[in-house]
Amino acid sequence: MDELSRAYAEVLDEHDPLAGFRERFVIAGDETIYLDGDSLGRLPLSTRERLHAAIDEWGTRLVGGWDDWIDLPLQAGDAIAPLIGAQAGEVLVGESTTVNLYKLAGAALDAFRHRVVAVAETEFPTDRYILEGLAAQRGVELRHDAGDVEDALLVRSLVDYRTGELAELRERPGCTTIWDVSHAVGAVEIDLGAAGAQLAVGCTYKYLNAGPGAPAFLYVAQALQGRLRSPIWGWMGQRDLFSMERSYDPEPDIRRFMAGSPTIIPLVAVEEGARITAEAGIGALRAKSLAQTELLVALHDAWLAPLGFELATPRDGTRRGSHVTLRHADGWRICRALIERAAVIPDFRRPDAIRLGVAPLYTRYVDIWDALDRLRRLVAAGEHELVDDTPARIT
Amino acid sequence: MDELSRAYAEVLDEHDPLAGFRERFVIAGDETIYLDGDSLGRLPLSTRERLHAAIDEWGTRLVGGWDDWIDLPLQAGDAIAPLIGAQAGEVLVGESTTVNLYKLAGAALDAFRHRVVAVAETEFPTDRYILEGLAAQRGVELRHDAGDVEDALLVRSLVDYRTGELAELRERPGCTTIWDVSHAVGAVEIDLGAAGAQLAVGCTYKYLNAGPGAPAFLYVAQALQGRLRSPIWGWMGQRDLFSMERSYDPEPDIRRFMAGSPTIIPLVAVEEGARITAEAGIGALRAKSLAQTELLVALHDAWLAPLGFELATPRDGTRRGSHVTLRHADGWRICRALIERAAVIPDFRRPDAIRLGVAPLYTRYVDIWDALDRLRRLVAAGEHELVDDTPARIT
Repeated sequence: MDELSRAYAEVLDEHDPLAGFRERFVIAGDETIYLDGDSLGRLPLSTRERLHAAIDEWGTRLVGGWDDWIDLPLQAGDAIAPLIGAQAGEVLVGESTTVNLYKLAGAALDAFRHRVVAVAETEFPTDRYILEGLAAQRGVELRHDAGDVEDALLVRSLVDYRTGELAELRERPGCTTIWDVSHAVGAVEIDLGAAGAQLAVGCTYKYLNAGPGAPAFLYVAQALQGRLRSPIWGWMGQRDLFSMERSYDPEPDIRRFMAGSPTIIPLVAVEEGARITAEAGIGALRAKSLAQTELLVALHDAWLAPLGFELATPRDGTRRGSHVTLRHADGWRICRALIERAAVIPDFRRPDAIRLGVAPLYTRYVDIWDALDRLRRLVAAGEHELVDDTPARIT
Repeated sequence: MDELSRAYAEVLDEHDPLAGFRERFVIAGDETIYLDGDSLGRLPLSTRERLHAAIDEWGTRLVGGWDDWIDLPLQAGDAIAPLIGAQAGEVLVGESTTVNLYKLAGAALDAFRHRVVAVAETEFPTDRYILEGLAAQRGVELRHDAGDVEDALLVRSLVDYRTGELAELRERPGCTTIWDVSHAVGAVEIDLGAAGAQLAVGCTYKYLNAGPGAPAFLYVAQALQGRLRSPIWGWMGQRDLFSMERSYDPEPDIRRFMAGSPTIIPLVAVEEGARITAEAGIGALRAKSLAQTELLVALHDAWLAPLGFELATPRDGTRRGSHVTLRHADGWRICRALIERAAVIPDFRRPDAIRLGVAPLYTRYVDIWDALDRLRRLVAAGEHELVDDTPARIT
């Protein structure tokens, strides 16, 4: 059978051991193909139920609910831990990736006294801005080339948000690295513990399907927890907080990275999203993701390269995350046309990158085949040239 | 009619112009009396609906929802603005009160170069800890007595969380004050604009009824916005954020205080809670709250003072917020007994303070009468002495 045929994609779906998970998400019955789960994941049916229950729990238990809610940041963290090779008590959920990165970077600078911070120019903007800000505030040197630095604080994404390239998870001697696993967690096997990783942050609204702007997480290796102190001294990180003691004396464990009251309702979505992911198994998810991005690359080569597309993602599967980036000189208009005329949802990154995300919990092989088929027909017919090219906001 | 009689309380309820608002909240049909709305407010029915709709919007609109969601932090802020005497564009909703205070205090220290920060020992712990941390990090002096400082950064609660005392909202010349209006907003008339207030933070899960740990807000007077810069340089505060520019260049307006992706779903609860409050009218809410705390004080004097209680809240209504604090040597056990044996929910603050909160949107006069009646009977009968006095977690 032709491996680039739709029939073959159907066969792959029939034999997909994870196929049943798709039914556990809210999916409209129309022809839309969603390839942006790497930006915002879908809503699991069980998460909707749990969110409704959490709302009602607020209504009925009122302040008494805090007896249980207060444990949710750690509970949700423990649900994420096995997905990233962390132990129980090493992951805390709350706030945004940005604020968590600020906390860890500030804490690491205080504890390790690095005089240099380094973050590549190509890193995700908030990672760069946070380090730029801390460097200015602390009077340390900011470098955009981490190639040869020693004794520095580094921030590095495990999967590059632009190209989908998967970095090697390896600590650099003499440096402290904060790993940003936002574009990896839930779709790539990560073993922070085995790599001896000290610090990490990550987001939950992509492959963990926890909802728009859902609380993010931070990871601090057990051995480091007592040595690091968040720059934000909030009461929720205080030991025995209701003693309302005069001076700040943080918890000995990862709870010291809490600041204010955790936002409870979305935390249940994080816990449930991580639970579903663990149930599917990160090994099985990674295997499916690799097979799907492989198909995507093969279809690109066969159909799209002749139309002026260029692959920005590594061909070597071991160096690839779960999204594939195609460049095209007319990328912006093609992206708009895909959404408006072909009911395919990718996302766009300036100046010319179309990202196609594979979310192995719910993306089918035929989705990839159909999306790329629509894409090639649209460009071959010049339909994108009919689209207004005014730059607009795309998230 | 005896003004301390239950019949009189019933008459007050019959003539309460806000009485109808109670039906718009989830309230169990049992005998429980909830006097802890100053800690966690009730769930409005319309908020439950809007939360359900927001969850479904995530499920159906997926990433396309961001076209509207991105405006929610400002929209919710604009809904709060009239409750605190702010203009549109002066209030931003997101993160916790703690993180917001950290942002404003850090920004103010950078901009105004104060060499002293001052916060009273009696202030809410997180306010004290945040300033303690910033003082240590910036090498400025921390004072716990703000009585005679000049050229300092001050943090001050408008309503004291322990005693319910309402401070005078007045700027101190030469100093920068960050007002914490957490225990005031939604129950007390606040006019930051008229007072020339520069900076404020506040929480939404008390009288604004936005849910456990709901996103908090910050206020920055229009004229100051361009001069202040958050210490947390996040991508959501960046001008033209999807240009992904190399260097941080924040928005000219209050959006520069955003950090990471806003947590969308709970933001609709903030907006709805503020909307209901504005609909009732802050003047009417304040009038009812004052009348209710007045009744509470009168019943205390008549029934509770003889039983060893002491009023910790000002008798002068113009100096009182919306909760009344009673002290008793056996406060902890009385508080437990009230919850376990009398179905009255107050809260407790060490060492001996029982807080009784009035939430004028849904608290009835008979609730106050019944709660204090149960309380006097319980203590008169010595029932609290039967309660285990092991200190446990109370939030």
